[in-house]
Amino acid sequence: MGSGQLTVFALPGIPLVKNGDALDALILEALDRASLQLEDGDILVIAQKIISKAEGRSIALSEVKPTPEAYELAKATDKEPEIVQLILNESQQILRHRPGVLIAEHKLGFILANAGIDRSNVDADTDQVLLLPEDPDGSASLLRKQLSSASGKRLSIIITDSVGRAWRMGTTGMALGSAGVEALTNLRGHKDLFGRELQVSEHAVADSVASAAELIMGEGNEAIPVVIVRGLDEGYSGQDAKHLFRPQHEDMFR
Amino acid sequence: MGSGQLTVFALPGIPLVKNGDALDALILEALDRASLQLEDGDILVIAQKIISKAEGRSIALSEVKPTPEAYELAKATDKEPEIVQLILNESQQILRHRPGVLIAEHKLGFILANAGIDRSNVDADTDQVLLLPEDPDGSASLLRKQLSSASGKRLSIIITDSVGRAWRMGTTGMALGSAGVEALTNLRGHKDLFGRELQVSEHAVADSVASAAELIMGEGNEAIPVVIVRGLDEGYSGQDAKHLFRPQHEDMFR
Repeated sequence: MGSGQLTVFALPGIPLVKNGDALDALILEALDRASLQLEDGDILVIAQKIISKAEGRSIALSEVKPTPEAYELAKATDKEPEIVQLILNESQQILRHRPGVLIAEHKLGFILANAGIDRSNVDADTDQVLLLPEDPDGSASLLRKQLSSASGKRLSIIITDSVGRAWRMGTTGMALGSAGVEALTNLRGHKDLFGRELQVSEHAVADSVASAAELIMGEGNEAIPVVIVRGLDEGYSGQDAKHLFRPQHEDMFR
Repeated sequence: MGSGQLTVFALPGIPLVKNGDALDALILEALDRASLQLEDGDILVIAQKIISKAEGRSIALSEVKPTPEAYELAKATDKEPEIVQLILNESQQILRHRPGVLIAEHKLGFILANAGIDRSNVDADTDQVLLLPEDPDGSASLLRKQLSSASGKRLSIIITDSVGRAWRMGTTGMALGSAGVEALTNLRGHKDLFGRELQVSEHAVADSVASAAELIMGEGNEAIPVVIVRGLDEGYSGQDAKHLFRPQHEDMFR
């Protein structure tokens, strides 16, 4: 794959993002200030939070009117009824809950704690929470076109979110949306070192790239919302992050 | 985290590994041939397969005598009874099965398809399959001591395996064992950009590093079993990959 060397580095100087901000312009200005040049094959990994902020996906909790169902679930999970109402609004179904935890299938298909709803890094004074982008693959595709056109380079975009796993502690990166990169590399038919067909045949490349980028993004005060991954140039692919959903008929743990 | 730049690169020239091989010597020789110097803080990510091979964890299928339970489960999953018997031997419990798929809780605690048993990259003529190392954290710790002592550098080791996920297609890297690196970075008490305490508080660093390395390792014929991750130096930690197991009382999907 690629050159045998991957470089993962921060794009410094992205300001706090607000509703309506043009992310392509903010990224191009930050590249300029840092004297960084994009190269063919670069993957720009973007934190979900700044996509959601730019797209105005924040909601004031005071404007949410919880239903009786939300009040009941809030009691069972020790959560605020307004937050639970938002989780219900954003979900296809609630899969599991217990005090402090609510696992939902988001309308987009992701299985996520709290349906991916995030209270951190939204201004506390306005009491707002952040929802996921409405169409993460679409957001990635738009940004890819804008930045490719402005830079003249062949680029890919991955929008990443930090997510938990069923059986492992801690979060890793997940490709919420992507454009240009082959999200799921199909190794079917490849042979191993002894000529036997490989059993494990697909690699979730976009999720692994998201995880690599999250090592640099940091969290908390040092937040770096844009990271560049260089050296994994496998050419353009039209296969986006939607291809990483496991189909429901294959799911044994829902 | 670290310097804001991560480099992930292959260590070329590791030969086919056999039972009893000294991995530390093979790695030091490969570094020498490639004129590569280890640096303080380097993480060496090692493919599980070569650890298992060096530790003699391969078993000839012809020596396995399936029980009636294995024959029954083999029929239900379209698998060879001998493979199923090995999966049963290696597991605490079978969580799910259907034709072609068998999800088990390995004796070590990992939840894995086929209990992590791998037929690929084991010589087809001898009809052998490869089991997981008996003590992956112990294997990582030994290799860390050997390589740190030989190089005079402060190193970390992660043993990686490619694993599937419940709700996502494709595999990513998972830290099967580790030594020296803080496997689970605790962000509890950190504040976000607005001074609010972070909700998502732990990052599965060792799993993310394993995923980054798997982007370089490739699969099939181009296999690169050792990858170096440079730039994530957070000092020595005694917290190994065992800390990444979700405790059973927190598990809602077993």
